[in-house]
Amino acid sequence: MLSKRLSKYFKSLQLKKYRLQERKFLVEGAKGVLEVLKSDFQVATLLATPDFLSTLDPSLRTTTNEIIECKVADLEAVGTFKSNNAAIAIVSIPEQASISIPSNELSLALDDVKDPGNLGTIIRIADWYGIKHIFCSPETADLYNPKVINATMGSFTRVSVHYANLVGLIESSGVPVFGALLDGESIRERKLAANGLLVMGSESQGISASLRPLVTDPIYIPGRGGAESLNVAVATAVMLDNFFR
Amino acid sequence: MLSKRLSKYFKSLQLKKYRLQERKFLVEGAKGVLEVLKSDFQVATLLATPDFLSTLDPSLRTTTNEIIECKVADLEAVGTFKSNNAAIAIVSIPEQASISIPSNELSLALDDVKDPGNLGTIIRIADWYGIKHIFCSPETADLYNPKVINATMGSFTRVSVHYANLVGLIESSGVPVFGALLDGESIRERKLAANGLLVMGSESQGISASLRPLVTDPIYIPGRGGAESLNVAVATAVMLDNFFR
Repeated sequence: MLSKRLSKYFKSLQLKKYRLQERKFLVEGAKGVLEVLKSDFQVATLLATPDFLSTLDPSLRTTTNEIIECKVADLEAVGTFKSNNAAIAIVSIPEQASISIPSNELSLALDDVKDPGNLGTIIRIADWYGIKHIFCSPETADLYNPKVINATMGSFTRVSVHYANLVGLIESSGVPVFGALLDGESIRERKLAANGLLVMGSESQGISASLRPLVTDPIYIPGRGGAESLNVAVATAVMLDNFFR
Repeated sequence: MLSKRLSKYFKSLQLKKYRLQERKFLVEGAKGVLEVLKSDFQVATLLATPDFLSTLDPSLRTTTNEIIECKVADLEAVGTFKSNNAAIAIVSIPEQASISIPSNELSLALDDVKDPGNLGTIIRIADWYGIKHIFCSPETADLYNPKVINATMGSFTRVSVHYANLVGLIESSGVPVFGALLDGESIRERKLAANGLLVMGSESQGISASLRPLVTDPIYIPGRGGAESLNVAVATAVMLDNFFR
């Protein structure tokens, strides 16, 4: 049974202000909730239908502080999904360890990617290609926004996302810095070594003026048609696919 | 000055029922409106701010039946954009010529891609890679949905989108049919000839059971990480990038 108080608490976590205050975020739907239960994230409260709970591996139940059975209508009332017949979890935001850019693997940097759907999709793409770290400028969308978490399809459990001043971080790293720039070298023309950092710019502005001088290897995706650009998540996928061919 | 009647008419075109009845659709924002004015599409009404109109090439004004000056607040009231300081156009839906699948170029087929954002993004990707025709199953999102048109960033003016029974169309075509399938051959392992048809399945189900037997060349994108799949628009881009390397 879902109390009014708890229902209000779930809804409050759709807002960044309350996520920061409570250090909690929401994960919605069967796929995301199963992934978070299997991960190292700490699930504080699991709100789920009897059907979902009956199919749940018992070992996954023991890692959760509190499990509450509810109706489908409750899930849809407190969450952001139009339809959700499975579950919503309240999950603790882990402490962010400060980390430098690894030199022996490829990481991503996002310079003001503001659309939550784009950030979530990029995390899913990073997970597909085995990228472990994404460094985001402070103006990039909030990882714990439900739209971001939902678009990752559970990949937020496997990819670490760090917020930092990118200029300072890159200057102190010494790794090769690939940047998606229209005047870059074609990704077809060279063998791309998959270590260092790949910087993707914002939807409207591309890579910011303060970061551009730090790009050691400007690269671009050759097109054949009339479109002026690709969506930033789509471009990230094509770039990574070329790094890992 | 925007009359109440016209304001209501704009808003009605956000709904498929009225788009079908009136054979009209909306194009919003500076980029999309400029692209449609430059294209062969017939613009019936252009609602725009004085600022936008003052920067408009005079030759583009003459192709429009009716031009109405308005305020930014009017654009945001009758359209779907949260912010739009430029223009909205009412555009005629062209007659759809019946067409078979070209044999000497690569075309796309979308089997029940239901999310409007995905369809729009795929049209933009197709335009980037010079694809001219997309064949959609009847259950695929409606091309003239404002979310689709807006996500194309103007590319709907250069890529033809056809709705058809895909089984019948493919059976009568005789072209190679590439299909994104998890048990397919890696796109790294073979040289992909860019002619024939590339079929992308729906977000939740992949390629439908009735179409699968028609796929002559099942292919897949090798991943290295933990994600189970890629978003359909992202996968389309990676596939096309491999066809055109």
